[in-house]
Amino acid sequence: MSNLTINADRLIGHIEELGRLGRDEQGRLVRVAASDMDRLGRDRLVAWLQEAGLDVAVDRIGNIFGIWQDDTNAGQAPVMLGSHIDTVIDAGIYDGCYGVLAGLEAIESLKEAGFAPARPIVVAAFTNEEGVRYAPDMMGSLVYAGGLDVEEALATVGTDGSVLGKELERIGYAGPHEPGFLDPHAYVELHVEQGPVLEREGIALGAVENLQGISWQRIVIDGVANHAGTTPMAMRSDAGVAAARAIVFLADRAAASPTPTVATVGTIAFEPNAINVIPSRATFTVDLRDSDEARLGEEEAALAAFLGGLATSANVSIRTERLARFAPVTFDPRIVSLIEDCALANGFSCRRMTSGAGHDAQMIARVAPSAMIFVPSRGGISHNPAEFTAAGHVAAGANILLGVAARLAAD
Amino acid sequence: MSNLTINADRLIGHIEELGRLGRDEQGRLVRVAASDMDRLGRDRLVAWLQEAGLDVAVDRIGNIFGIWQDDTNAGQAPVMLGSHIDTVIDAGIYDGCYGVLAGLEAIESLKEAGFAPARPIVVAAFTNEEGVRYAPDMMGSLVYAGGLDVEEALATVGTDGSVLGKELERIGYAGPHEPGFLDPHAYVELHVEQGPVLEREGIALGAVENLQGISWQRIVIDGVANHAGTTPMAMRSDAGVAAARAIVFLADRAAASPTPTVATVGTIAFEPNAINVIPSRATFTVDLRDSDEARLGEEEAALAAFLGGLATSANVSIRTERLARFAPVTFDPRIVSLIEDCALANGFSCRRMTSGAGHDAQMIARVAPSAMIFVPSRGGISHNPAEFTAAGHVAAGANILLGVAARLAAD
Repeated sequence: MSNLTINADRLIGHIEELGRLGRDEQGRLVRVAASDMDRLGRDRLVAWLQEAGLDVAVDRIGNIFGIWQDDTNAGQAPVMLGSHIDTVIDAGIYDGCYGVLAGLEAIESLKEAGFAPARPIVVAAFTNEEGVRYAPDMMGSLVYAGGLDVEEALATVGTDGSVLGKELERIGYAGPHEPGFLDPHAYVELHVEQGPVLEREGIALGAVENLQGISWQRIVIDGVANHAGTTPMAMRSDAGVAAARAIVFLADRAAASPTPTVATVGTIAFEPNAINVIPSRATFTVDLRDSDEARLGEEEAALAAFLGGLATSANVSIRTERLARFAPVTFDPRIVSLIEDCALANGFSCRRMTSGAGHDAQMIARVAPSAMIFVPSRGGISHNPAEFTAAGHVAAGANILLGVAARLAAD
Repeated sequence: MSNLTINADRLIGHIEELGRLGRDEQGRLVRVAASDMDRLGRDRLVAWLQEAGLDVAVDRIGNIFGIWQDDTNAGQAPVMLGSHIDTVIDAGIYDGCYGVLAGLEAIESLKEAGFAPARPIVVAAFTNEEGVRYAPDMMGSLVYAGGLDVEEALATVGTDGSVLGKELERIGYAGPHEPGFLDPHAYVELHVEQGPVLEREGIALGAVENLQGISWQRIVIDGVANHAGTTPMAMRSDAGVAAARAIVFLADRAAASPTPTVATVGTIAFEPNAINVIPSRATFTVDLRDSDEARLGEEEAALAAFLGGLATSANVSIRTERLARFAPVTFDPRIVSLIEDCALANGFSCRRMTSGAGHDAQMIARVAPSAMIFVPSRGGISHNPAEFTAAGHVAAGANILLGVAARLAAD
C-alpha cells in the first residue's frame, strides 16, 4: 500500500472550502451545532460524499455517515474514520473538519486506486462535538456509543433556548437510523493536535495512545465583605486571597509533578467586585487532567485537602461542585502500533502521545477498537481563527490515515 | 461644660427619621447625591435646621450649612461640625447622617442650655461624599476647600448620564454662596468607625489623629490563551496564575508588616474566562493604604518590584495604571487632644486611631484645623443596611462632639 497516496490539493481545497461556509457578518466561522450555519457545512459535506459515490446515512442524532461498500464486503463490520464539522464561535478551519475530510479523501483515493477492501470503509461526522450550543460536548458520538439516550439528547435545551431535536428537524438532519446502527470493526480519528508538543519537538505525527481524564470543578469560597481601608489584615476573611492561594497551589503542584498532569483555573469572579471592598465571595473553576485515573484521583484529593486546610487558615468556608468528570481513555494498542508502523514506513517522524483535549474517539472507544493520529498545530493554537497546520503536515496525516484504514480494512 | 449633654432620644429620633427617607420600592436606602431621594433628605434637614433657629445657607455645589450666630460673635470664624447625608445604594442609616445630626443636636442642646459661644457654631452637610453617582467622592468638601474648581465639579457627568449642576438646580440645591464662604476656625466630624477596631477592643470612642493615604492601581497581566488540556505546564503563559501570585504577595506582605498597612484586591477579571482555556489576560485592582506617606510609597514600590520579577518568571507582560492617589492626612493635634480630654472627663474609654476610610474632614483639613471622632460600628459593617451603632455609643459620641465644640467655640 505504500504506493497509495491521498490527493493533497483536493483535501486542502475541501478544508478551505468548508472553512468558508458558515461565517457571520464579521467573518467569524460560527458553524455551531444544528444551526443554519451548521446546515451549510453539512449540505456541502453530503454533496461531496455523494459525488464520491458513497451511500449517505444520517442517524437520529444527526450524525452523518458516508459508506463505501459493495456486494463483496457489505456484511462485514466497517472501518470507520471520523470526527466532526461543527465549530466553536470564531473557530479555525481544521478542528474536526480535517478528520472528516481526510477520511473522505482516504476513501476517494483508495477507490481511485482500485483498492478492494475486505470491509466497508465509512467516514463519519458526529453531531455537536464542540458543545457550544448544547451540552455535553461530544454528544453525537456519546449517543452513538450508547452513553446517552437519544431521546434525552434530542430534548437538550441550548444556550439560546432552542431544542436540539427540533433544530435537527428544521435543518433537515434528523435522520432515520438508530445511533449505533453501524458496528465498527475499528475507528480512527485524525485531528490537529491543538497543543504545542509536536511543533516544539519537530515531529510530524502523533500516535495517540490515550486521552486524558478530565475533572472539572467549581469552587465557591465565602468570606466576609468589609471595608478595604478600615479592616486590619488580621481581622479579614478575604475570599479573594483564599482563591488566589488555591490557584497558586494548583499551578505549583502541577508544575512540580513529574507526570503530565495539568491544572488550569480559567474562570474567576469576585463579589461584590468593588475596588474598596474585601471580596465576600470568590468563585472559580478548576480543570484537572491526567492520563492516569489513579493520578487524577490523587490530584483531586490533593486539592480537596488543600482547600480543607485553607478554610481554616484563611477563615473562609469553601464548597466544591463537580461539573464534569471523564475517566482517562486508553486507545487500542494494535491500532496505535499500526499508526507508528505506517508513519515510519512512510519516512515520517512519529511519537506516542496523550491527547489533552476530548475527542469523539474517546466515545467510540467504548464500542470499538479506536485510536487517533495527531498532526502539529502552529503555536499550539486552536479554537481560534489563527489555528493552522502546514500543508505538508495535513498531507502526511491524511496519508497515514489512508494507510491505517487500508490495513484495518484488510483484516 | 460637663453639665451640658445632648438629648439622646431626639438625636436618635432624627437619625431614624432621616433613615426612613429616600428608600426605593425594595426598601433600600438610596439617597445618592443630587437625586430626588437626596432631595427628600435635604428638605428634612433644612426644616430641622430652621426649626432649631439656625440660618440656613447653601453654596453653589449644594453644601448645606446651619449657622448659629448672634450679634456678639457674627464676625468670628465659626466652629464647624459636619459630615454628609448622601448615601450609597442600599445604605445604612448612620454613615454621614450621624455626624450632621449630632452637629445639629450639639447646637440645639447648647442653645437650650443658654450657652453663649464666643464664635458661631455651624453644622455642615457636604454634597456627594459617597461618589456613587458622581466622581470623585468627597466632592462637596473638596470643592469647599478649593481642591476642585466649582465649575468643573458642577459639569461632572454621572453614571446615569446626568450633569451634577443641572441636578442640583432641579432639586433646588444650587445655592448662591461661593464654596468656602465660611472660613472655619476649626472643623470636627463625628462618624461611625466603619471598621471593627473599637468594637473588638471594647473602647467607646476614637480620637482620630490621622487618615490613611490611598493608592489605587489597576494591574493588567497579559499571557497567552491556550488549551487547558494540551498545553504542558512548562509551556504556559498563564495570566491568571500570575495575578494570583501578585494577590498572595500583597496579602502576605501586608499581613507580615508591623505597620497598619492594608492591601486589598477587590476586583478581578480573566479573559477569555472559559473553564478550559488558559487565561490570556487577568485584570485586577489594588487598594493600598497607609497612614504614613513614605511607607505608602514603599508599598507601591514593593509591588512594582514584585511585578517586575513576576513578568519574567511567569512569562507574562504587566502594565499598571494609577486610578487614584491621596496622601495621608494628619489631623490637628490640639483638637485630637481636646477629644481625648473630653472623653476622659466624661468617663469614656478612648483611643487614638487612624481612619482607614476617606471622609470630608480630610478635605476641610486643607483649610482649617480639623479632627474626627469615631464611635464603634457593630461588626465593623458599613455601606450596608446592617450598619449599626448602639444608642449608648451614639449618645456618647454626640456628647463629646458637643463638649469639643463648646471648648473650640470658647477660643
